[in-house]
Amino acid sequence: MRREVGIVGVGHPRFGKSSVSFTDMCCYAAVDALDDAGIKTGEGHGVDQLFLASMGAQMLNRQSGIASALVDTLNLRPAMAESVENGPASGASAIKLGYMAIASGMCDVVLVIGGEMMRVVSGWEGTDFVATMLHPIAEYPYGLTLPAFAGMFTRLIMEKYGVLESDLARVAVKNHENAMYNPAAHIQLVPKLEVITEDEDKDIINPYVAEPLRLYDVCPVSDGAAAIVLCAMEVADRFAKKPIRIAGIGQATDTHAVAEREVATDLLAVRLAAQQAYKMANLAPQDMDVAELHDAFQILEIVESEEVGFFPRGEGHLAVRRGETKIGGKIPINTSGGLKAKGHPLGATGVSQVIEIVLQLRGEATGRQVEGARAGLAVNFGGFGNNVVATILTKEVE
Amino acid sequence: MRREVGIVGVGHPRFGKSSVSFTDMCCYAAVDALDDAGIKTGEGHGVDQLFLASMGAQMLNRQSGIASALVDTLNLRPAMAESVENGPASGASAIKLGYMAIASGMCDVVLVIGGEMMRVVSGWEGTDFVATMLHPIAEYPYGLTLPAFAGMFTRLIMEKYGVLESDLARVAVKNHENAMYNPAAHIQLVPKLEVITEDEDKDIINPYVAEPLRLYDVCPVSDGAAAIVLCAMEVADRFAKKPIRIAGIGQATDTHAVAEREVATDLLAVRLAAQQAYKMANLAPQDMDVAELHDAFQILEIVESEEVGFFPRGEGHLAVRRGETKIGGKIPINTSGGLKAKGHPLGATGVSQVIEIVLQLRGEATGRQVEGARAGLAVNFGGFGNNVVATILTKEVE
Repeated sequence: MRREVGIVGVGHPRFGKSSVSFTDMCCYAAVDALDDAGIKTGEGHGVDQLFLASMGAQMLNRQSGIASALVDTLNLRPAMAESVENGPASGASAIKLGYMAIASGMCDVVLVIGGEMMRVVSGWEGTDFVATMLHPIAEYPYGLTLPAFAGMFTRLIMEKYGVLESDLARVAVKNHENAMYNPAAHIQLVPKLEVITEDEDKDIINPYVAEPLRLYDVCPVSDGAAAIVLCAMEVADRFAKKPIRIAGIGQATDTHAVAEREVATDLLAVRLAAQQAYKMANLAPQDMDVAELHDAFQILEIVESEEVGFFPRGEGHLAVRRGETKIGGKIPINTSGGLKAKGHPLGATGVSQVIEIVLQLRGEATGRQVEGARAGLAVNFGGFGNNVVATILTKEVE
Repeated sequence: MRREVGIVGVGHPRFGKSSVSFTDMCCYAAVDALDDAGIKTGEGHGVDQLFLASMGAQMLNRQSGIASALVDTLNLRPAMAESVENGPASGASAIKLGYMAIASGMCDVVLVIGGEMMRVVSGWEGTDFVATMLHPIAEYPYGLTLPAFAGMFTRLIMEKYGVLESDLARVAVKNHENAMYNPAAHIQLVPKLEVITEDEDKDIINPYVAEPLRLYDVCPVSDGAAAIVLCAMEVADRFAKKPIRIAGIGQATDTHAVAEREVATDLLAVRLAAQQAYKMANLAPQDMDVAELHDAFQILEIVESEEVGFFPRGEGHLAVRRGETKIGGKIPINTSGGLKAKGHPLGATGVSQVIEIVLQLRGEATGRQVEGARAGLAVNFGGFGNNVVATILTKEVE
């Protein structure tokens, strides 16, 4: 019988542009999470392990051994500590490792921090940094970038399933609307659907970034950090908040070169990861009340919503048109604002997604609450679907 | 009852200067480990998870998401994958995570690869890269480096306990002698003790690097990779080699700023990590038959041999003089040649240390075999003792 693991603390300062150092930014998120759990640092703190998730702290901030620095700054010595990297899925990976650390019996309490300070570089430098996650021989040297891949992928999906540019815009507008109620969201404005899709100046207001993707079809570049406290369910009564249970975790890798995939319009790793997570949780897609899907590009939210089993293949955009992914719809997606509007500080994103599900299951998602939510799914997407982690959380029966 | 974990495959190409890419270098080590375990890649490979340990692949090789790339290149899809960083202790950290992954019941078989390609930079650039593990505010900006810290630490130890320059040289000569029998060792030559300590040209042959440390008192800069296969003991009979059991793992962090430590001549994290590992293994220092201690600087081997309980404080150098750490002595240390002669490709080192213990317990350490070895300790040291991992392996009773 595996030890059960819950989440008893969350910390999520607002994403955007950081005015403090990378380590300080991470510490602020961690302090919020520790406070939420009611943990006092210093002697007797009880935190056994810290995991830091970051894709690029080495390249961007020229630091290593940062996890140890965070343990010390947070006054959590002699806790164990490691940094974890899995591209933009680093956050969910770190939560998976936290789960393993506790389920193995090696730890009772684990602090997971995800953070990225991306805005120290700008323009092509930022795009180039992100592209380091692509295949080092078959892709990166040819100048391929993530927006380029997403543009080509979107074109294929449009031709195959009849997705329109306006469907992408609908996803964006929905997520921007949700973000208005999330104080942690980077961007807090709502574009009008007609203006970004039909206005005669739409090419100026919403220009192509990587055709057919326009500005409002891609996420912004954000700094940010988010943190959670995990614990063994058997010690959960030590903490200030009731635990939200980690019921399922799944993860799968796909070919590292995107051109080698069997079906260019599938996201196989999303499907496999979600299937594993459902199996472990003994739940099905229709049991999910809320979901955070990795919408670094709006097309991904649509295709992921099919791969995780919410809608039949090729019909995700129809569900968007029908409003089924809005709050109050069949399965609300990205109630946090998603990567699109909340922001996408790479290493922080997977942690941020799980925090949104925790808040929904606690009933603390003020203004954007999905009523009666009891189970939720988060999908964190690394590379261009090279390595995907799916996490299912459930509310304990009271 | 926690699931037991064993090591059934090891791969250790020679350390030195790599003529292939970082990922290829890692794959060669992995293929050797998979072969040793008798694992065939491709469909039905059975590997659930890959961990890549590297301190600097991002900074040095400008790649991220490398763990996913390795899964694909090794034909191990859709295995889960993460990269792990804990400075020069990244290797042992990755083994710890592999242990947790299996002990948690989430995985049955885990491949751990440690690798570093450091010789793409040289001279001050290499020293600067290594120094990124120091405190980002209190140390690194002031130009402090690892050799500088080791030099200051050595001076304090010399003054406090009467350690002589010739004691450091004795450790070096012993390790170089051991490396002559390790085909994976970078440096295969043995300096004469008198030449490097007494010769009239000793300042030319063995010049000061960071006084009182001379050239032969510090490890070389090496490229290299090493890999191991871990499995749940209950599935160990699937594999070609008998498992060596991971009996204990301990890890501790210390202050990130070295100047803040209570006793400047102690290595507190080494002591705490070793104590935890002994406790978990239910073994004592005197039960160890062989040990790999992290001798990035020769002084560390002496002080660590005290902190892990082999010798009383301040007497490690006396044990060296008496030959007690040589093969055939009371507790042979660094039979592999240690970091001093085998080389120290940072992320690979912790994996390499554990491989040496595996070979000793298997009875496969040809030419340097410790007869009848049944238990061994490896200490992997991150930062300047900021984050230390201790691992104890035991041979199963037959």
